[in-house]
Amino acid sequence: MTRNVQVSELDRRAVEDQQVEIVERKGIGHPDSICDGIAESVSRALSQLYLDRVGKVLHYNTDETQLAAGRAAPAYGGGEVIEPIYILIVGRATKSYERDGETIELPVDSTALAAAREYLQEQIPELEYGTDVVVDIQLGEGSGDLQDVFGEEEVQVPMANDTSYGVGHAPLTETETIVHEIERGINGEYAAENPEVGPDVKVMGKREGDSIDVTVAVAMVDKYIESLEAYKAAVKEVQAYAESVAREHTDREVSVEVNTADDYDAGSVYLTVTGTSAEQGDDGSVGRGNRANGLITPNRPMSMEATSGKNPVNHIGKIYNLLSTVTAEDVVAEVDGIRDLQLRLLSQIGRPIDQPHVADAQVVTADGVDVADIEDEVSEIVDENLANVTEITREAIEGDISTF
Amino acid sequence: MTRNVQVSELDRRAVEDQQVEIVERKGIGHPDSICDGIAESVSRALSQLYLDRVGKVLHYNTDETQLAAGRAAPAYGGGEVIEPIYILIVGRATKSYERDGETIELPVDSTALAAAREYLQEQIPELEYGTDVVVDIQLGEGSGDLQDVFGEEEVQVPMANDTSYGVGHAPLTETETIVHEIERGINGEYAAENPEVGPDVKVMGKREGDSIDVTVAVAMVDKYIESLEAYKAAVKEVQAYAESVAREHTDREVSVEVNTADDYDAGSVYLTVTGTSAEQGDDGSVGRGNRANGLITPNRPMSMEATSGKNPVNHIGKIYNLLSTVTAEDVVAEVDGIRDLQLRLLSQIGRPIDQPHVADAQVVTADGVDVADIEDEVSEIVDENLANVTEITREAIEGDISTF
Amino acid sequence: MTRNVQVSELDRRAVEDQQVEIVERKGIGHPDSICDGIAESVSRALSQLYLDRVGKVLHYNTDETQLAAGRAAPAYGGGEVIEPIYILIVGRATKSYERDGETIELPVDSTALAAAREYLQEQIPELEYGTDVVVDIQLGEGSGDLQDVFGEEEVQVPMANDTSYGVGHAPLTETETIVHEIERGINGEYAAENPEVGPDVKVMGKREGDSIDVTVAVAMVDKYIESLEAYKAAVKEVQAYAESVAREHTDREVSVEVNTADDYDAGSVYLTVTGTSAEQGDDGSVGRGNRANGLITPNRPMSMEATSGKNPVNHIGKIYNLLSTVTAEDVVAEVDGIRDLQLRLLSQIGRPIDQPHVADAQVVTADGVDVADIEDEVSEIVDENLANVTEITREAIEGDISTF
Amino acid sequence: MTRNVQVSELDRRAVEDQQVEIVERKGIGHPDSICDGIAESVSRALSQLYLDRVGKVLHYNTDETQLAAGRAAPAYGGGEVIEPIYILIVGRATKSYERDGETIELPVDSTALAAAREYLQEQIPELEYGTDVVVDIQLGEGSGDLQDVFGEEEVQVPMANDTSYGVGHAPLTETETIVHEIERGINGEYAAENPEVGPDVKVMGKREGDSIDVTVAVAMVDKYIESLEAYKAAVKEVQAYAESVAREHTDREVSVEVNTADDYDAGSVYLTVTGTSAEQGDDGSVGRGNRANGLITPNRPMSMEATSGKNPVNHIGKIYNLLSTVTAEDVVAEVDGIRDLQLRLLSQIGRPIDQPHVADAQVVTADGVDVADIEDEVSEIVDENLANVTEITREAIEGDISTF
Repeated sequence: MTRNVQVSELDRRAVEDQQVEIVERKGIGHPDSICDGIAESVSRALSQLYLDRVGKVLHYNTDETQLAAGRAAPAYGGGEVIEPIYILIVGRATKSYERDGETIELPVDSTALAAAREYLQEQIPELEYGTDVVVDIQLGEGSGDLQDVFGEEEVQVPMANDTSYGVGHAPLTETETIVHEIERGINGEYAAENPEVGPDVKVMGKREGDSIDVTVAVAMVDKYIESLEAYKAAVKEVQAYAESVAREHTDREVSVEVNTADDYDAGSVYLTVTGTSAEQGDDGSVGRGNRANGLITPNRPMSMEATSGKNPVNHIGKIYNLLSTVTAEDVVAEVDGIRDLQLRLLSQIGRPIDQPHVADAQVVTADGVDVADIEDEVSEIVDENLANVTEITREAIEGDISTF
Repeated sequence: MTRNVQVSELDRRAVEDQQVEIVERKGIGHPDSICDGIAESVSRALSQLYLDRVGKVLHYNTDETQLAAGRAAPAYGGGEVIEPIYILIVGRATKSYERDGETIELPVDSTALAAAREYLQEQIPELEYGTDVVVDIQLGEGSGDLQDVFGEEEVQVPMANDTSYGVGHAPLTETETIVHEIERGINGEYAAENPEVGPDVKVMGKREGDSIDVTVAVAMVDKYIESLEAYKAAVKEVQAYAESVAREHTDREVSVEVNTADDYDAGSVYLTVTGTSAEQGDDGSVGRGNRANGLITPNRPMSMEATSGKNPVNHIGKIYNLLSTVTAEDVVAEVDGIRDLQLRLLSQIGRPIDQPHVADAQVVTADGVDVADIEDEVSEIVDENLANVTEITREAIEGDISTF
Repeated sequence: MTRNVQVSELDRRAVEDQQVEIVERKGIGHPDSICDGIAESVSRALSQLYLDRVGKVLHYNTDETQLAAGRAAPAYGGGEVIEPIYILIVGRATKSYERDGETIELPVDSTALAAAREYLQEQIPELEYGTDVVVDIQLGEGSGDLQDVFGEEEVQVPMANDTSYGVGHAPLTETETIVHEIERGINGEYAAENPEVGPDVKVMGKREGDSIDVTVAVAMVDKYIESLEAYKAAVKEVQAYAESVAREHTDREVSVEVNTADDYDAGSVYLTVTGTSAEQGDDGSVGRGNRANGLITPNRPMSMEATSGKNPVNHIGKIYNLLSTVTAEDVVAEVDGIRDLQLRLLSQIGRPIDQPHVADAQVVTADGVDVADIEDEVSEIVDENLANVTEITREAIEGDISTF
Repeated sequence: MTRNVQVSELDRRAVEDQQVEIVERKGIGHPDSICDGIAESVSRALSQLYLDRVGKVLHYNTDETQLAAGRAAPAYGGGEVIEPIYILIVGRATKSYERDGETIELPVDSTALAAAREYLQEQIPELEYGTDVVVDIQLGEGSGDLQDVFGEEEVQVPMANDTSYGVGHAPLTETETIVHEIERGINGEYAAENPEVGPDVKVMGKREGDSIDVTVAVAMVDKYIESLEAYKAAVKEVQAYAESVAREHTDREVSVEVNTADDYDAGSVYLTVTGTSAEQGDDGSVGRGNRANGLITPNRPMSMEATSGKNPVNHIGKIYNLLSTVTAEDVVAEVDGIRDLQLRLLSQIGRPIDQPHVADAQVVTADGVDVADIEDEVSEIVDENLANVTEITREAIEGDISTF
């Protein structure tokens, strides 16, 4: 059956060419991202548990982690957490499975808690498990609908049971790239050398015409900062690093500011014990931060659907958000002449998810390129990715694709 | 000081004129909306408490309610809830206040719980408090920064302490209007006459060209439905009602489907004890559903910021989302010749919030109208609404403005 | 089969004749008693639910309610609760039952919560449900052993599956009677006329020789007390009432003191919003207060086993504590010449519970009476009550017998 | 001031000479003991925290830990926990302290959680923290009464603010000794060599005349037990060990049975993943198990007061229970001719706790010894221990004395 792939001209300027652009990324240590990360870790662990124990992914949905902030007393040279952060993992999961008259009990709670613990220890290492953070769990039984679609033996494409929507974009604009890369860089190569930067890095980019303002907020870890002077130096160094990252991606005028809410005279700075604002006052939950492409982009259509924590086998919202993002990137990587591509996927209830109601690729072409010139190429790639939709499921289970 | 209000042409077609349009509204009984509604009720109650007790709104933020679904056994003629829905109100609030050397203890927990209880009893009346639903609370102490800006004696405009963004649109497209009005109608005049429809009404609209498909999901309340036949009749009646609402707002071709996931042969229908899917398997949280204008509109720029539950005195994200929406509506109501208006407000750290960094009104004008013709009119209304920004705070506190 | 009932002389003086005697009773509004009361209400409700739905009592055990105190700001004329009391019902219950190939879902959570709510509203009426107190529940699945012994059709005597111990005493001494009756009186006829006395009434009796000191602590309800003067008057009135109750039961010298921790000069008095110290600082849990006879009596052997909340069909500890108490009372009511009776029941694993390993009645006889004179009578009553052991189960389910 | 120490003859036979004696000890891994142990660890840690930070012990009370059982799937060779045990630490603690105009924030929650974690890891090592067991905390603010009595500079004896009661006994009877030593031995030297025995060891002793029956229940750890045969062997070995311990302490006839509820034919044995029945179905809480001397002894007067978790500086119930126990032991160690000693301490409101209302030592003397002969000696030791009452506080804080 032929898929309904439409390719048309996007009726607006490329975001790169718009006058005002706003972009945000909440880093991995931001309270909302912590929840996204835990939810997705739990999801991966449950998928793996089901595959290991019963050979196929059973029904679950764990896209509802809630974080209630703790209380901390940071201090130069090292402070302490006073009241722990409280994290509640919420969701549904299949807890037992009948096979050949035997009931297999599935340790979903323990598995989910282990996944959350491991995730936190890896990503927010300063957060001591059990004292700085308490993780609790409330997983209800799912509806009992077993889901056999993603198993060892056969991989079937599931049916859409909801009208759902996904949207992806490519390529990233300079501002988007800068915002994304600054966070990734600070939390990556930079943090590796500079342990004083905590994982709660929030980057906001604003472009007006050819002037890009980047605001970075970095939770500094107090035990690596001996004094206000050391703090100021650390901020300056982050500023220089972020600016250098930005310059790699644009020739526009760029200004970077770090921890702008600090008031040195009042002694009020962004110092934390654990490297995340969740230790004091900032709550978080799943689906409130970055979209599937890692960014918040008000200049672009976005899906409200939370991607993290959902079952990657049959939750269309998750699959279409990931698939449209990946596919948009694939198209732009392979087809020349595209300044901006927006790919929307809309499911049709009762049809296999590789057969969306609409797969709608809208493009802003480069000067001299006509949509008609590239229509077939684009269409083909979209079609191919739809045909391989279960590949997205596999990547999500194996953690090869990021959801936030 | 002159405000920086820009009026320019929107570089795209009006959404009404785009080829594909998708719109969604989660009704008041949807798990996400329940959380939004509780969060906003709690916010209003706390604002009022602070005004009553200390004459001004103190620091708080309650935008993080989490709902974990219960378990229910619906049955024709009346089933029962088996395990209660669990709702956890999360946030920060100032719990005591020093005045004239005296400490005033503020009952924030009790006030929040009372607000949540009242809200639930009013909006989801079939949900018996304490057995069908358990509401718990975890409000930390706020950071202690007292906020004096919205008090009895003087109303000052607060400073922006964050770079935040709000966006509003007007007028609603036909599809948006239809989706919105169907939910409001079913949960309003229709429910008043037809107690079998529960408040969990989800409406999805999809327009392709001039053909509008509306999908409505309504949680039926089992005690008013005696049999499958009665259920079918109830669905049909909702369908007819929704269709009639739709026809009031468009001349386009409209088709309405209700509870499409039902499978009559398998006896699987959307029957509930309490009128909300939260009773069985559907979790929810704040900020995952409708935006400030009551809709999810992937065709339009949206802010990810949760509006419900935030402090309306000093949370810029909330204020700008509400203000941009209201202002866009005001402009379109007063200025002729606008087919589509998108108003963006971007705060500037350290400046009063009535002085945004950018107030950016982009319009698609009607045929024969030029942006230059209406620029001044638009600019003036935006400027005036910014000048009266604290009015938004007042309306939010008094519940005169909806946040979801 | 003959039961092993032993009657012998108790090798000590009657408690009435001992030099020092200490007795305590925690009234129904004491935090520990609130937990006992809720646990037992929940137990009764679950027994009834099982009888109604499946015709027999299934496995459950709900003897672990925990209360975490709230925070309140009492004030003459009426104060308010600031933070709610938090009550967590903990236990195990059978949640579904297979019959004729059909699974019957049992609403154990909702039933337990309803029972707790009803109990609280009846016994601690000033405590507003949902704002002054939040009740949450965590009932695990039982071990799955179904218990068929107490059903509609047949009543079988269950087997003891544990070595357990119960002990009962009769008659009450004067001091015990006084302590018991003062609390019952204040929370009964006195409270009916004097709404200012809350249900948290704690009575401590100490007898040295022929001098009885009674200390009563009564949580006064602030909204019925307009001033310190009114408070003092209320205390005096309680004192007079308690003294009059005491005098009905003894000719010994009695002194009664009420709210001895008050410090009028410092303005520190026992004033509460809700009539229980659970509103501020006093936590509670099951099995930490009164024994099955309603008293704490360090002069007498006591079982540590919590009686409230346990399954009355098969939990031997509960049954033997209740049965030994009732039987001791029966014996003393029917047999003359007993100054003090102590009845111990010890189960034997694997034998029916009406066949204890030992039923050991020890008596202090009145002057001129010999144990041999009454041995047969005593033995017969004990034997008869053991034969009717399931009667205790029935009374516990129907709430005809108090457990604390 | 002279203390009111009374020495008199106990009006009953020594417990050793009574016809029937019942004794129980719940080992450290029993759910109730786990709660006792955590509560006392938390108490010690808080005392230490206060001493370290402000030089004196502030107000707190943490005697209310609740444990809700988990769910596990034990299996020969190693099973797994399915749902975690949930432990809620409840209590009050002073969270900040004003000194010289400065507020010292005290990390009571984190400190308590760290103490609980450390305790569990040490005592129940098979229980993996965070997955097999989730520990949460709910510590309210105390009443704000600061307690300065136990500090660095000065040690004052606090005033009794309640009528409270403690009772101690010595020496232990043979049965008591056996029950105590079997548990201590299994959880000590025996476990060191035999990792298959878990810490949940419950010992019940029943003596009738000169025949002692001991019932031991030991939670076996599945990963060290490969088969039913291995299990049977392990049980037999425990039986032999327990019997040998018993024989060291008596010449009476002793029979020991282990895991009597096992049914080998049905394959039903006491196998656990973690060595405690808390993993499946057995809830627990503080103060429901062993008294301060480590035993439950219905033949002896007992205080209902929970000892574990209470503030050792000013909680009379705790202090008097510990002091009476220690003092009874001291007396018997130093004074010859005592077969049974029962020491009761009763506080007097408003007097220093080293000045009890009554210190009442009742003795059963050995043949040929008269109470008058030893009265002065006994009195002197009691007086001296009362004079050094704060020594008990110190020992409790330093963990040199066991509370359960």
